[in-house]
Amino acid sequence: MLDNLSLVLHKKDDLRLEVTELPGDPAPNVGICGSDIHFWKDGGIDKWVVKNPIVLGHEGSATVIKVGAKVKNFKVGDRVAVEPGIACLNCQVCKDGNYNLCPDVMFYGVEPLGGALRRYYNQSAAFCHKLADNMTMAEGALMEPLAVAVYACRRGGIRMGGGQKVMVTGAGPIGLLAALSAKALGAEVVCILDINESRLQFAKQLGIDKTVLIDTKADVESLCQQVVDLLGDSPDVSLECSGAEMSYNLAISASKCGANIVMIGVSNKKVSVNLSSAACRQVNLLGVMRYLNSFPMAIHLVSSGKINIKPLITHTYKLEEALEAFETSRNCAANGAIKVHIQCYQ
Amino acid sequence: MLDNLSLVLHKKDDLRLEVTELPGDPAPNVGICGSDIHFWKDGGIDKWVVKNPIVLGHEGSATVIKVGAKVKNFKVGDRVAVEPGIACLNCQVCKDGNYNLCPDVMFYGVEPLGGALRRYYNQSAAFCHKLADNMTMAEGALMEPLAVAVYACRRGGIRMGGGQKVMVTGAGPIGLLAALSAKALGAEVVCILDINESRLQFAKQLGIDKTVLIDTKADVESLCQQVVDLLGDSPDVSLECSGAEMSYNLAISASKCGANIVMIGVSNKKVSVNLSSAACRQVNLLGVMRYLNSFPMAIHLVSSGKINIKPLITHTYKLEEALEAFETSRNCAANGAIKVHIQCYQ
Amino acid sequence: MLDNLSLVLHKKDDLRLEVTELPGDPAPNVGICGSDIHFWKDGGIDKWVVKNPIVLGHEGSATVIKVGAKVKNFKVGDRVAVEPGIACLNCQVCKDGNYNLCPDVMFYGVEPLGGALRRYYNQSAAFCHKLADNMTMAEGALMEPLAVAVYACRRGGIRMGGGQKVMVTGAGPIGLLAALSAKALGAEVVCILDINESRLQFAKQLGIDKTVLIDTKADVESLCQQVVDLLGDSPDVSLECSGAEMSYNLAISASKCGANIVMIGVSNKKVSVNLSSAACRQVNLLGVMRYLNSFPMAIHLVSSGKINIKPLITHTYKLEEALEAFETSRNCAANGAIKVHIQCYQ
Amino acid sequence: MLDNLSLVLHKKDDLRLEVTELPGDPAPNVGICGSDIHFWKDGGIDKWVVKNPIVLGHEGSATVIKVGAKVKNFKVGDRVAVEPGIACLNCQVCKDGNYNLCPDVMFYGVEPLGGALRRYYNQSAAFCHKLADNMTMAEGALMEPLAVAVYACRRGGIRMGGGQKVMVTGAGPIGLLAALSAKALGAEVVCILDINESRLQFAKQLGIDKTVLIDTKADVESLCQQVVDLLGDSPDVSLECSGAEMSYNLAISASKCGANIVMIGVSNKKVSVNLSSAACRQVNLLGVMRYLNSFPMAIHLVSSGKINIKPLITHTYKLEEALEAFETSRNCAANGAIKVHIQCYQ
Repeated sequence: MLDNLSLVLHKKDDLRLEVTELPGDPAPNVGICGSDIHFWKDGGIDKWVVKNPIVLGHEGSATVIKVGAKVKNFKVGDRVAVEPGIACLNCQVCKDGNYNLCPDVMFYGVEPLGGALRRYYNQSAAFCHKLADNMTMAEGALMEPLAVAVYACRRGGIRMGGGQKVMVTGAGPIGLLAALSAKALGAEVVCILDINESRLQFAKQLGIDKTVLIDTKADVESLCQQVVDLLGDSPDVSLECSGAEMSYNLAISASKCGANIVMIGVSNKKVSVNLSSAACRQVNLLGVMRYLNSFPMAIHLVSSGKINIKPLITHTYKLEEALEAFETSRNCAANGAIKVHIQCYQ
Repeated sequence: MLDNLSLVLHKKDDLRLEVTELPGDPAPNVGICGSDIHFWKDGGIDKWVVKNPIVLGHEGSATVIKVGAKVKNFKVGDRVAVEPGIACLNCQVCKDGNYNLCPDVMFYGVEPLGGALRRYYNQSAAFCHKLADNMTMAEGALMEPLAVAVYACRRGGIRMGGGQKVMVTGAGPIGLLAALSAKALGAEVVCILDINESRLQFAKQLGIDKTVLIDTKADVESLCQQVVDLLGDSPDVSLECSGAEMSYNLAISASKCGANIVMIGVSNKKVSVNLSSAACRQVNLLGVMRYLNSFPMAIHLVSSGKINIKPLITHTYKLEEALEAFETSRNCAANGAIKVHIQCYQ
Repeated sequence: MLDNLSLVLHKKDDLRLEVTELPGDPAPNVGICGSDIHFWKDGGIDKWVVKNPIVLGHEGSATVIKVGAKVKNFKVGDRVAVEPGIACLNCQVCKDGNYNLCPDVMFYGVEPLGGALRRYYNQSAAFCHKLADNMTMAEGALMEPLAVAVYACRRGGIRMGGGQKVMVTGAGPIGLLAALSAKALGAEVVCILDINESRLQFAKQLGIDKTVLIDTKADVESLCQQVVDLLGDSPDVSLECSGAEMSYNLAISASKCGANIVMIGVSNKKVSVNLSSAACRQVNLLGVMRYLNSFPMAIHLVSSGKINIKPLITHTYKLEEALEAFETSRNCAANGAIKVHIQCYQ
Repeated sequence: MLDNLSLVLHKKDDLRLEVTELPGDPAPNVGICGSDIHFWKDGGIDKWVVKNPIVLGHEGSATVIKVGAKVKNFKVGDRVAVEPGIACLNCQVCKDGNYNLCPDVMFYGVEPLGGALRRYYNQSAAFCHKLADNMTMAEGALMEPLAVAVYACRRGGIRMGGGQKVMVTGAGPIGLLAALSAKALGAEVVCILDINESRLQFAKQLGIDKTVLIDTKADVESLCQQVVDLLGDSPDVSLECSGAEMSYNLAISASKCGANIVMIGVSNKKVSVNLSSAACRQVNLLGVMRYLNSFPMAIHLVSSGKINIKPLITHTYKLEEALEAFETSRNCAANGAIKVHIQCYQ
C-alpha cells in the first residue's frame, strides 16, 4: 500500500492532510487556483457546494507509474500535464469536437472526482498530455491555467500577423497568462489593466507591452480613451479576466466594430451592462468553458520558448506544508504571490 | 424636371410631403420601420438626431430609370431591392469582407444620405440587388428587414439538417422574419415569444412552430422551462428581437452550453444580466450590424418559395398618404399592423 | 442461441449464407454497395484484401434487442441506423472532432469487424442513430450512403440561400444522393452528368434540375460549355462521384474561381489532370473520408421531408436470397437497379 | 515633365529601357520574378501573350509623390509596398471578401496595366500598403512574394501552437519564403526539398529546420519515408512550390489524413497524379490565386522581426542596368542568385 498523502477539504474552513486510499500516479506539482481558496473559505462556488470530504487541486503535473491495459501512448516514467476533467467522449457533443461542453463531463475537486493534491491518483489517458523534455514539472503544473488562457485567445480569434490590439482586464494569474498567450499567438500590442499597481509592475517585468492602473472612481469614457491611446487603436479582442461590471462596460465601449470580448472572469451576481452598444456595433461577448484541446497547444508554446511562464511561480511548498501554501495563496494581495505551488512527491 | 415628391422630416413631429430636387430612380415601394417612427416622434435615436430636414425611409424597392457610365450589371427597367447604405468598399475593413463594419459607411435617412420615401433617388449599383422575375415590388421592399433576419440567422449559425432548436424573443416584424428565416435556413423547431397575444396569433398563421405568451410578472425560470418543453430541448440559437432585459436573461438561462444568442433588438439603457452564467457555459452574445451580403440571400429564399413574406404587408398607402401611413404604423399595437407600405410611384 | 444467419465472403467469388456465432441486434435492412460487389468479385479493393471469411454489408438499419450496462440513450426496441465503423474517440484526432480520420478506426466488412449482412450483430452505441418515427427500416438502411452524400455537400460548402450552381458527375446511387442532398441543403440549380441515359432519366424523375448525357468522345471544352449553359453560370461546387479522369478535368475546367470540387468517387489508377489550372484559379480539390457526424443530419433531412429517398430502393430481397440480390446489384447497368436491399430479419 | 525611365518589353527577347509618358510615384525598388523572365524569353505565359510593348515588374515598393483628392490614408512622402493588381471592389465576389477572385481584376505587366519597372507610376490607394518605419525599401519590394507565401500558409491552415509538420517542395524564392512564413506562423517543424543542393544550403542558412535533396530517379515511397522521418510524422500541410508531377505525388503520399496541400507552383501541362489516394484519406489540394489582404500581414511579420527576409536579396542593380539584372536573374541556377532587385529611383 502506497502512502497516499492527500489534501482533503472536509467542509468550509476545514482542510486536512490525510492519507487516502486510492493509489494512482505520483503528482509532483500542483498549483493553487483561486477557486481552491473559494472552496476552502466559502465552502463552495455557486451550485458546487462541499458536502463530503473531497481532495482539492486541479492544476497538476505527474509522472506515470502505471498504465491501463489498452493504453498505447504512455509508458511508466512519462511526465505529463493532467487535464483535470473527464468528458464521456461518446456523446454527440463530444463527437462534434466540443468535449468541454459534454453534459456528462466530470471535473477534479467536484464529486465524484477528487482533485490532484495527493501523492497518487488515476486519470484517463485521453486527458494526460506528455510534457516536452525541456519542461520542468513545475511548468507542467501551469499547463492548466495556461490552457484556459490559450483557449480564450483562440476563441477570441487572436492570430499571428493580424496586427491586433488586445486589451486584458485583470492582472491575476489568468490575466497575466492571457496577456502572455495573446502576445505569443500574434497580438501586435497588449494592454493589461488592474486596480493593483504591484500586479501591473509584475506584468511589465513579464514583458507585457502596456499597463493601465484602474482608479475605480474613474469613468469608463476616460479609461477607454487611455487604452485606445496606448494601443494605438480600439481593441480587436478583449480578454476579460476580472468579472467586474466596470470591465465589461469598458470592454464594450472600447471595442472596435466587430470585435470579440472573451468572458473568462466570472462574478457572483448580475452586472448592469450596455448590451445595446455591443449589439449595434457587432461586438461579441463570448463565453469560454474551461479549455478544449488546449493542453497540447500550451505545451508547444512553452517548450518552443514562445512563452516563459516560470516567473509566475512565486512560492513552492511541500505537500506536508499544504495548509501554509493555502494561507500564502489566500493572502496574495498582501504578499505579492502569483502562483503558489505544492510539490506532492519527492 | 421630374416631380420628385418626398416625405421629409424637418424636426421632431414635423413630417412633410414635399417636392425635392434630386432626381433618381423610381421607388415603387417603401416599408416603414420602427426606427422611422422613432425619428419622427422622438426626433432621433441615440446619437443620430435630426438637425436638418431629411427624407425618411430605408426599406425600398425601385425600378432603374438611369444607369451610370461604368455600371455593367444593370439596365433601365431592372427592378431592384435597394440596400440602404453605402460603404466605401476600399478600406481594410471592406476588403476583409465586412463592409457592414466600414467606419465610413453612410446610411439612408441619416445625413448626408436622404432616405427612400420619395419618387426618385440615386443609389450606388454595388448596393442594388436585382429582384427575381417572380417577385413583386412589395416583396422587394421587404428585402431590407429580411436581410436583417437572414444575416442574424447566419451569424447565429443556423443551418440545414442540424436539428437545431431556436428561440425568438419578440414577435414584431423583425422577430417574425427572424423566425421564418430560421425555419427556411434549417432550424428543426422554432419557438417565438411575445407579450402581445395577437402577434403570436399572427405568428401561428405564418406557420411558426411554437408560441409563448410572456406574462411580464412571470419569473425567468418558469418561462425558461416552458420554452425548453416546447422545443424539446434547450435552444441552440436564440434570436433576441426585443431589447428587453428579461429577454436577455431568459436567453442566457435557457441556452444550451455553447449556444449563440444573436442580439438584434436594442434598448436605450443598460440591462442587468447574468453574464457569468453565459461565460461559464460558453454561451455567446453576438452583435449584428445591419447585414452583410444578405440581400441576394433574402431574394433567393423568397423567389425559391422557401419563405412567404407577403402576409406581413398588412397595409399599403400611396406616397400622397404617407403621413396617414405613419400614423397607422405608429398605432400598430392597436390596429394589428405588421408592415405598412407606401407606394412611391404608380 | 439465436439463429444468426449471415452472408459470409470466404474468398473471391465465394459468397455463402451461414449461421455465425456472434449474437447481436436484429438488422432488418441492409443495402448493397458497389464496394460489396468489388469485394465479392475482385476479392478486395486496393490494400483491403479478403484473407479470412468475413461477413459483408455496411449499409444497415437495425432494432435494438439488448443494451450495454452504461448505455443511457438507447433502449430495447429502438430502431436505429447503424454507422458502420468504430473510431477510438480517445485520440487527439477524435478529440479534435475528426473521428472519421482516426488512425485506429475500424470499418464494417474489414477485419476485425464483420459486416451487417446477418440477423444479429453488436455495435457501439456511439455509432447508432435513432430513426425518426416516420421513417421505415428501409430508409434507415439508406442513411449510410446518404451520410456520404451529405458530408460531401457540407465539405463542399453547399448552403441555403447562396444561389449556388452545383455539378454532379456520375449518376449512380451516390451521385443521385449527392444531387438530392445538394438541393435539400440549398443549391439553386443542380446538373448531373452520366454516360448512361437511363440513369439520367431516373435522376429527372427524382426532380434533379438538369441532366447531361456524356459522350465519352466529346471534348471537355464543349461539355463544359453545356454545363455552364444549363446551370446559368460556372459551378460553385462540383461533386465528383465517378472517379473518371474526364470528370476531374471537366470539374476543373468548368469551376468558377474559388470553387470546390469534392472528390467522392475513386479509381484504381493515376489520372492525368490539369492541376495548374485549378491552382491558379483557387479551385480546391477536397477529399472526403466517409462521413463525420452526418447520420443525424441525414435522418433530419429525410424525416423532415427535405429529401425523398424511397424511390432509390428498386429491389428488395430476403436474407435467404442474398446471393440473388448480389447478382441483381452486379448487373445494375442491364436491369436498371439502383439500390438493392436485403431484409435480414422478419 | 518627369524623366520616367521604364523597362519595356516590346516582344519576345526585346526588352528596352525607355522614357515613357505616364508620370506617377517613384518606385525605389522592384524585384524580378520568374514570370518576368518568362515574359521576356518566351513572350508570355499561358494565355497571357505580349502583343504591345508593356512595362514589366510587379514586386515593387515606392514613395508617394502625389495623392488623389479623396485619398485620406496616405500623404506625400509615405513609403509603401505596392500590391500589383486592382480589383473592382464593387462586385459580389469582392464584397464577399475575395477580391483576389474578382472577375475584373487587373494585374501589373498585363494590359491594360503596365508594371513597376519605371521611375513613376500610379496605383489605387486601396492597393498600397504603408511600410513600417523600421523597414527598408528593399524589404518593401519583397512584400509581394512574401504575400504569396503568407496567403498560401493561411489557406493551408498553419497556426501557432498546433505542433504542425510542414513540407515545402521547391526551394526557389517562393519556396524559401513559404518555409519562413510557415515557421513564423507557428509550424513546429518545416522540411524543404529541392533538386538543387546549393538552394538547400541557402535554406539551412535561413534557419529552415530540415532539408532533403531530391534525386529525380528516387521513388516517391522512399522520399516520402525520408520526409516523415525528418519531420517526426506525416505532414499536416504541404506547400507545393515547384509545379512538378513528382512533388504532387510526394505530397499526396506523405500527407496525413485530413491534411492540406497548397498548390502554389504551376506547370504548363497536365500531371499524372494519384487523386484517389488523396480523396479517400480526405487530403485536400487547395488552389491559391495570388494573395488576399496579405500585404499587411507580410509587413507585420517583417517589421516585428518574425521573418528576416533581407538575406534573400542577393543582387541589386540600378534601373539603368535593368537588362543586366534580368540576365543575372535568368542565370540564377549558375550564379546562385535568389532575388535580384532593381533600384528605379535614387
